[in-house]
Amino acid sequence: MRATVMYGAGDVRVENVPDPGIQNPTDAVVRVVRSCVCGSDLWPYAQMEHSEEGTRMGHEFLGVVEDIGSEVSNLKRGDLVVAPFVWSDNTCDFCREGLPTSCRNGGFYAMDGVDGGQGEAVRVPQADGTLVKLPVAEDSALLPSLLTLSDVYCTGHHGVVTSRVGPGKSVTVIGDGAVGLCAVLAAKRLGAEQIILLGRHKDRTDLGREFGATDVVPERGEEGVERVRELTGGDGTHAVVEAVGAEQTMANALGIVRHGGVVSRLGVAQYTSIPLGFDAMMGNITVTGGAAPARAYIEELLPDILDGSVEPGRVFTHTVGIDGIPDGYRAMADRTALKVLVQP
Amino acid sequence: MRATVMYGAGDVRVENVPDPGIQNPTDAVVRVVRSCVCGSDLWPYAQMEHSEEGTRMGHEFLGVVEDIGSEVSNLKRGDLVVAPFVWSDNTCDFCREGLPTSCRNGGFYAMDGVDGGQGEAVRVPQADGTLVKLPVAEDSALLPSLLTLSDVYCTGHHGVVTSRVGPGKSVTVIGDGAVGLCAVLAAKRLGAEQIILLGRHKDRTDLGREFGATDVVPERGEEGVERVRELTGGDGTHAVVEAVGAEQTMANALGIVRHGGVVSRLGVAQYTSIPLGFDAMMGNITVTGGAAPARAYIEELLPDILDGSVEPGRVFTHTVGIDGIPDGYRAMADRTALKVLVQP
Repeated sequence: MRATVMYGAGDVRVENVPDPGIQNPTDAVVRVVRSCVCGSDLWPYAQMEHSEEGTRMGHEFLGVVEDIGSEVSNLKRGDLVVAPFVWSDNTCDFCREGLPTSCRNGGFYAMDGVDGGQGEAVRVPQADGTLVKLPVAEDSALLPSLLTLSDVYCTGHHGVVTSRVGPGKSVTVIGDGAVGLCAVLAAKRLGAEQIILLGRHKDRTDLGREFGATDVVPERGEEGVERVRELTGGDGTHAVVEAVGAEQTMANALGIVRHGGVVSRLGVAQYTSIPLGFDAMMGNITVTGGAAPARAYIEELLPDILDGSVEPGRVFTHTVGIDGIPDGYRAMADRTALKVLVQP
Repeated sequence: MRATVMYGAGDVRVENVPDPGIQNPTDAVVRVVRSCVCGSDLWPYAQMEHSEEGTRMGHEFLGVVEDIGSEVSNLKRGDLVVAPFVWSDNTCDFCREGLPTSCRNGGFYAMDGVDGGQGEAVRVPQADGTLVKLPVAEDSALLPSLLTLSDVYCTGHHGVVTSRVGPGKSVTVIGDGAVGLCAVLAAKRLGAEQIILLGRHKDRTDLGREFGATDVVPERGEEGVERVRELTGGDGTHAVVEAVGAEQTMANALGIVRHGGVVSRLGVAQYTSIPLGFDAMMGNITVTGGAAPARAYIEELLPDILDGSVEPGRVFTHTVGIDGIPDGYRAMADRTALKVLVQP
């Protein structure tokens, strides 16, 4: 089959790789119907050192079950399913606590002999625990929004849940990438009163306004912090969702959060420490968030997508075929595409 | 009156200072019946640069109302009251949210013209909001435990509440000072299943066991982290209460916490950043805590002290008169005293 392999910064190729097959009785093989490029893929795309063997790519996909192992009982061939970006057994203590990203029998796509999502098919370990059936047809117009359950919409939701967004609360979302915009959508869904979006790409912040942002702040750094303070009577917001992952944006998040408030970090941390010293202590600031336990959120988030009341799939601005994936990376890195959908 | 003034590291004096009087209609003047030396006082005692004018000391006290301003309506002369370590109006939005340490009209003792607790009397601003009446006599044997409502027991409670300790949960408390021991007591009270105390002073950890610690780990640094891992099947504990405030103990806390768990920091931060990078993100680690909103906890914690079911006052190992306060500092700095009670 065809699949995506990254060999170094800027070097993404679509190549022939072995077809996946059942290896363990808990596996399923899924033919990919839609996948996409993640903002987090742009970090290695910018920084990865050259590798002779390369690394498979992609962790967001939905598709059709083509084969199942002997112990898979919740799925059958032909089911349309969405795959959260971490596979998990959904039965261990961490999974039962709502943290499938720390599953005792789980793991990541595109490593350790598991396929990546940016290809024609994927062997999914722990298929019963991981895959969630979608009650639509393979040609449904809802597929882009359903695909966001794999990662980006669940990740935005994770940011607002962990930062305790709710009715009457104010939240700042730092970053107008797809995760940030999905956090805006999730904050609106959970009833936030004020949703301030920090971003400087007008096409993106316009979509943010449609998703529910009440204010847009294009200023960056200290100026952006000051602007949010002005918009909140000097206090900052109850919640801050950090959807970039840079050292500076994390520092800004701590400058924006209200006393007693919560910073939830979603952007893959490009820093090793954060400035959480005496002042944050006196203000009882909480820092939380992390890799979103997407599997644990899908049942809650699915109905609103099925009835059309939320449309997180609007973050996809471009669609490519499988051989167009390298172009998709380029477009996202250039910021000409917000997020690229792949239709193999 | 006599009161404590610190002039620099190791230089604490008890001196004559002006008697406090009502300055604002919301003030009360409290004659101090019991006060104490705080572990946090040891930081300036170790590090303060010499100052000609010195700084008043003390923020934990209980006493008798001697005078009230014209707008004070909840208190009368002769009431025995405990003062939380931050004064606050108890009506602003932060106070209503349970965060009186961020009160819009609040502040700290021993600064800005407000007396310190380590003296014979204190002018307490926002007296109605701040002071809580104690239904005991001035010679009650419960006074030491009631005094801990001012700070140390509420602070321990804050650590376990914010780190979500409860039935079935495991918690590590780092530090066998009075705050750490009060955190153990508070964790026991809230039903924690496993309470691991990290400390190397046997007299203190023995009291920790009586307070509810199920395990004591005297090892420090990486060895201590490994020992906690061993005691928890490799996972670490759901909660970690950091009751020291050093950079290394904060790093250890992050090494001890279980995926999805919470580190609550109580020790006054002597660091400016914490190593909360990619790994903590993948593990969905939360860092929270801070200055305890003692005022908000007193009503909840008072009954168990009054009926004798908890005795946080056992952290006081030594008692001094007002002129013995410099000796009290020395004894705490030398670790010969755990916590020193002052009986002016």
